[in-house]
Order: sequence, then structure tokens, then C-alpha cells
Amino acid sequence: MGKVKVAAIGVSMDGFAAGPDQSLENPLGVRGPELFGWFFPTKTFTEMHGSGGGTTGVDNDFAARSFVNVGAWILGRNMFGPVRGPWVDESWKGWWGTNPPYHVPTFVLTHHARQTLEMEAGTKFIFVTDGIQSALRQAKEAAGDKDVRIGGGVATIRQYLQAGLVDEMHLVLTPVLMGKGENLFSGLDLNALGFKCVERVSTELATHVVLKK
Amino acid sequence: MGKVKVAAIGVSMDGFAAGPDQSLENPLGVRGPELFGWFFPTKTFTEMHGSGGGTTGVDNDFAARSFVNVGAWILGRNMFGPVRGPWVDESWKGWWGTNPPYHVPTFVLTHHARQTLEMEAGTKFIFVTDGIQSALRQAKEAAGDKDVRIGGGVATIRQYLQAGLVDEMHLVLTPVLMGKGENLFSGLDLNALGFKCVERVSTELATHVVLKK
Repeated sequence: MGKVKVAAIGVSMDGFAAGPDQSLENPLGVRGPELFGWFFPTKTFTEMHGSGGGTTGVDNDFAARSFVNVGAWILGRNMFGPVRGPWVDESWKGWWGTNPPYHVPTFVLTHHARQTLEMEAGTKFIFVTDGIQSALRQAKEAAGDKDVRIGGGVATIRQYLQAGLVDEMHLVLTPVLMGKGENLFSGLDLNALGFKCVERVSTELATHVVLKK
Repeated sequence: MGKVKVAAIGVSMDGFAAGPDQSLENPLGVRGPELFGWFFPTKTFTEMHGSGGGTTGVDNDFAARSFVNVGAWILGRNMFGPVRGPWVDESWKGWWGTNPPYHVPTFVLTHHARQTLEMEAGTKFIFVTDGIQSALRQAKEAAGDKDVRIGGGVATIRQYLQAGLVDEMHLVLTPVLMGKGENLFSGLDLNALGFKCVERVSTELATHVVLKK
């Protein structure tokens, strides 16, 4: 059976995994992109955006690994888009254009029902209105033997952590001070939840850590 | 003129720089020693404790550097000892025996007046009852051209940070999850306070970062 995993989450020295004030102009929050200094130059990222080139090496290895064996994704609604409240129409189709980087069933947590949305190359956004447990059940069923990746954002990851439903996390500790934004750790006791650091590799840009139960 | 610096502070992935429940048995709080996995093996530490041996290399370089050019220290009362409230007598003389590792005037913040305490080899504990600004003024005067090091604990460092009085910090990011204890960052905005990461070196055991204004 697959794992439930979180991967490739950039975290500042002071524990923030997204900047404050997410909006259409700032999908990652203000200064959020600074948490991805390790990711944007990689071959994995540049290929995803069709620009070609990109670095190989440890940062890219971890970036690539985060997409391996993923059978379904779960996203919080804000990771899907900047729209808040009821869907006014169905024009918003995610931050990623016609071919999002998921290519498998992707469950979006929301309080507002919406028809399933089929995108290119296998990405299908399924909107779940009855909570994180239901989304995980559906995602596991869709993933079969493969893993379910909790893509984010931070609030969604925190909910799954708090509920004890995450098996593994790959965090990327970046030498940035955010000061404000969405704190990944605040009020969570990952030690009590049973996580230990089982892998740690540093590069010029960041330190990759893998935490497992 | 000297700087006001914080140095050699081990910080867990989740932002804790000490464990919870400090006591006579747990001077660094429960599990606190796990934050010093990079420090205890170093030549700097082992020589300080007279046991000899110890590692050289990057961890030791940073450990040694933390003691260079320090003209005065400031410690919070809990870093000086486990005694709370009024001093019942003067029998408690710090955690460190007759020859503490300071060797310069060392100002201890407390609400309870006490006579200055002269230890071996130049360490002198001066108890300051009129606040952090007063302690810093006295420490700067004692240090002359040299630096003032805010030794800790976490609450004391946080007070000096919040007051905008710290010029430089060397933190040692350790691959440990504490879950609880004394959080260094919580509620502080180090970015707004003007800090930036100016140096970052990783070893097998930890990642050293230097933050400056």
C-alpha cells in the first residue's frame, strides 16, 4: 500500500512554508518564492514549465523524487487558486494553465461544491466538500498501490499532520527569514506525532531533510 | 566598538533552542542536549571540560569563534541556575563549578539582588536587577572595544532581539524535532528586525548560519 507523503516543501529558518497575503499576484504569498530558491533552477522545474535547461544534482534529485510514484494528490483550496467563498463561475482552472503538473486524480478541499474538472494529460481536479478524511479516502482509492501526496498549502498539510495521517515529509530548509506568513510548525508537536529525521543532505542552496514515523 | 552578539545557539528544525522543564537535572531542558550534538564532540567543548581530545573542523571552528573577542557576557537567570525566586543563600554559584567558561565580567539578569561573585580565571558574576538595557550598558562598558555576547537562555536572547539590540547571531540548525520547549522565533519577525543570512556552512551534524543586520 502507498504512503501518504508531503514533499518538496521549502521552509524558512523561522519555520514559514509560505509568505503572507496570498493573492493572484502572489500565489506563494509575499516573498514566498524565496522558499523555492533551491527548486526553480532545477531541471525538474524548468521541464515542467517547458523552458528546458535546468540544473541536475541533489536539489534536482529531490525535486524529481517528489513526483515519483504519486498516484493521487490532495490540495487545499488556496493552493488551487485565489478565489475565496463560493465559485462565482467555473472560469478558474488552477494556477497552472491547461496542463497542470499533476497528471493523476487531484482532490481539492473546498466548502463549495463544484463539478470535476478534466485537464490535459491525466490531471483531473475533484472537489471534495466533506473534509480531509473523505479526501484522503478517495485519494487512496484513486492511487491504488501508489502514494498520496499532500501538495499543500501549509494549512492543509498542518491539518493532515495534526490528524496523524502523514507518513513521510521531505522539507527543504532554506536560509531565509520570512518573519511572517504561514508557519508549518507552530503549535504542532512533530516529535510527539512520532517523526524523526532519517535523511539529511545539504547543497549550496538548502538542506533537504526527510522525516518519517 | 564591539558588537552585541549571540552565538553557538543550537536550534531544532521546529525552532526550539531549549527543551521544556529546565531543572537541576536538565540544565538545557528535557532533550535539550540533542541541540548540542554538533558541539559536545568538539575540541573547544572537551578542552573547556578538561577531558582533552575532541574534533577539529568546521563545527569546532564555529565553536571556537563564538568565544573570540568576547569582553563581557550577559546571561538570563535560568542560564545561571535552577534557583527561582529570591536567593535563599549564596551557595549556588552557577552550573559550571569553580572555573566557569567565561573568564570576563558576566552580567546575570535577575529580579533579586545579590553580591558580585568572583570565580576563578577572571569570571565575575555581576547580578543586575534593573533590566536588560542596564545590563547591556554595564556589559558594553566592561567589554570596552570587545564584543558583548548574549549567552542565553532563549527568553533572554528573545528580549534582546525584540528590543533591537542584537547585531549578529550564529545559529546552528540541527536535524532534531523538539516539539516543545523554548521557541526562539515564535512571535518574532527577524526579517522586519533587519536580519539576513550572510554565511551558511553545513557539516555532518548541523548547518551553521550567521545572521547580521
